[in-house]
Amino acid sequence: MSFYALIMAGGVGTRLWPLSRRDRPKQALQLVGERTMFEHAVDRIAPLFQPEQIFVVTGAEHVESLAAQAPELPLENFIVEPEGRGTAPAIGLGAIHLLRQDPEAVMAVLTADHFIADTTRFRRVLTAAAQVAAAGYLVTLGIRPSSPSTGYGYIKQGENLDTVDGFPVFHAERFTEKPSLETALRMVESGEYSWNSGMFVWRVDRVMAEFQRQMAEFYVQLAEVQATLSTPGYEPTLSRVWPQVAKQTIDYGVMEGAESVAVIPVDIGWSDVGSWASLLELLEADEAGNIVVGPHVGIDTQDTLIFGRSGKRLVATIGVEGLVIVDTEDALLVCTQEREQEVREIVHLLEREERGETGYL
Amino acid sequence: MSFYALIMAGGVGTRLWPLSRRDRPKQALQLVGERTMFEHAVDRIAPLFQPEQIFVVTGAEHVESLAAQAPELPLENFIVEPEGRGTAPAIGLGAIHLLRQDPEAVMAVLTADHFIADTTRFRRVLTAAAQVAAAGYLVTLGIRPSSPSTGYGYIKQGENLDTVDGFPVFHAERFTEKPSLETALRMVESGEYSWNSGMFVWRVDRVMAEFQRQMAEFYVQLAEVQATLSTPGYEPTLSRVWPQVAKQTIDYGVMEGAESVAVIPVDIGWSDVGSWASLLELLEADEAGNIVVGPHVGIDTQDTLIFGRSGKRLVATIGVEGLVIVDTEDALLVCTQEREQEVREIVHLLEREERGETGYL
Repeated sequence: MSFYALIMAGGVGTRLWPLSRRDRPKQALQLVGERTMFEHAVDRIAPLFQPEQIFVVTGAEHVESLAAQAPELPLENFIVEPEGRGTAPAIGLGAIHLLRQDPEAVMAVLTADHFIADTTRFRRVLTAAAQVAAAGYLVTLGIRPSSPSTGYGYIKQGENLDTVDGFPVFHAERFTEKPSLETALRMVESGEYSWNSGMFVWRVDRVMAEFQRQMAEFYVQLAEVQATLSTPGYEPTLSRVWPQVAKQTIDYGVMEGAESVAVIPVDIGWSDVGSWASLLELLEADEAGNIVVGPHVGIDTQDTLIFGRSGKRLVATIGVEGLVIVDTEDALLVCTQEREQEVREIVHLLEREERGETGYL
Repeated sequence: MSFYALIMAGGVGTRLWPLSRRDRPKQALQLVGERTMFEHAVDRIAPLFQPEQIFVVTGAEHVESLAAQAPELPLENFIVEPEGRGTAPAIGLGAIHLLRQDPEAVMAVLTADHFIADTTRFRRVLTAAAQVAAAGYLVTLGIRPSSPSTGYGYIKQGENLDTVDGFPVFHAERFTEKPSLETALRMVESGEYSWNSGMFVWRVDRVMAEFQRQMAEFYVQLAEVQATLSTPGYEPTLSRVWPQVAKQTIDYGVMEGAESVAVIPVDIGWSDVGSWASLLELLEADEAGNIVVGPHVGIDTQDTLIFGRSGKRLVATIGVEGLVIVDTEDALLVCTQEREQEVREIVHLLEREERGETGYL
């Protein structure tokens, strides 16, 4: 069995504005420590994969930046989508590249913009999952829920199939998209559900078979591109076919209807770092409950996230509590924590006012 | 009678940090509209004085900036103090320069960093005050109090001496330094007190006589400098004498003990623009109670001052209320309005931490 990683690096992350921008997506941000999210994503699997075994799917506009962040990866391992069509097509495109390397390849589909604190345990579960995948299962990594979040999909654990390297493996009985709070509460209390991490491990031939069975039109489109791999016709074909591909997520398109789906629920210190509030949970606060990145001087400042990365700009605060302050070169956000989900709305406002050309988007 | 203006332009204004800095004092700031405070100070007396009649007392570090803001003033009218010794010595230094122009000069001592909305009425009261001054009075401009502020000195109106050009002139019975809130309330309710604006009109020979009577040591020091006026010995003498001059305010040093002091209480839309909160009173708020200078996009933002002058940086706010947000090139302040007096404390913190060299001070 040969094991490959496919890092999905196509996201944007508008909820992390003003740090995230069109040309500075979430995976390029230094949110935790000095390494970017993409660098973390590559670092944590480096002990498990040779650089040649690590592939990245992304958009043309991000390749240069990502390649600079991971110079150890071969340039040809960066697979470029002409435009984003959702996770299912991105994974399909990665899959045909891996099939060419090895028809019996097992691939781990990994995320570029999530944080994982316990990287040792993460690599151990990937190794265990690869063994389960080799037997034909589509394996999803489930995250033990720490709260009844309504922002994630949930996976119901069914029959206990096996225990591999100490990790219990369950039949994945059902995928549930972002639930209501009531439903989420019930699911978390039952102890039978994991969050859907968006990370999967499977044999490439197995996922291709599911594409063929469940996404027949896409499978034909993908086969057309596959036929041109390693030929001068590849890029023109991809550019012609891709815009016609229907947008689809791997959850809807494949996982919910797939056969032999397993889930391994794990506790690996996972965070999707999906919003400024998630950083408040992730980073260590000082005695006053503040998390401060960058120069700061404060009087009576509490439970506040101050995220300044634009060099040596000083942030001074007096008498504030429960705020999110994000300071960048050309834009500043001051927001209450309870309203921080509305950062997305600011981005929409800017889009509507066509302020994009001024560089704020 | 010849009438001169002496603009006192030596202040710093630490409560307006981070906009005000050691090398960018309050009078150089564009706080109201596009003109600096000093430009406003010169503009509003321009209809009353020839440029040659307008003098400025300031420190060496500010001369270049001030001269650039008022290029119409003769360079020799900028009188440079080797170091600040308080308002009394600054006025004394200005006085000997004016005496050389005209032994019978009447001088208006004016401030460079206050705002006056009703400039027409201001010029009218100056003209009236000059007539009272010509008769030998030391005239102070009193501001009718709009609140029981504990941040100003108060002047008690005594006997009504006269009415000049429609302005009632009172004997100034007593000067009271910054009072307690209780005292301030009583004074404002009595209707017998004005705020001390720090603006005075008097004959130069009269104030020199008061220096001689009440500040005898300073008068001798001043005479030593005076003897060298228009000679090469002036600057060396000033540099030698000035550091020995005792620090003194004109209120303590002269006004409180002076003879024939008059006060003309006026309502000229005066503001000392002494803090960020004062701008909230001075500038016009939008429907949500916000005052915004610079690019801004907000969701549910109320009663907030957003002061961005560093070019095109965008300030985005969500769910905030009653804040002061001041955004400059290298430092940012986020502060509740009720605590904004503590901005001064931030400056002290920076001084203690010796962050001055990084440019924050």
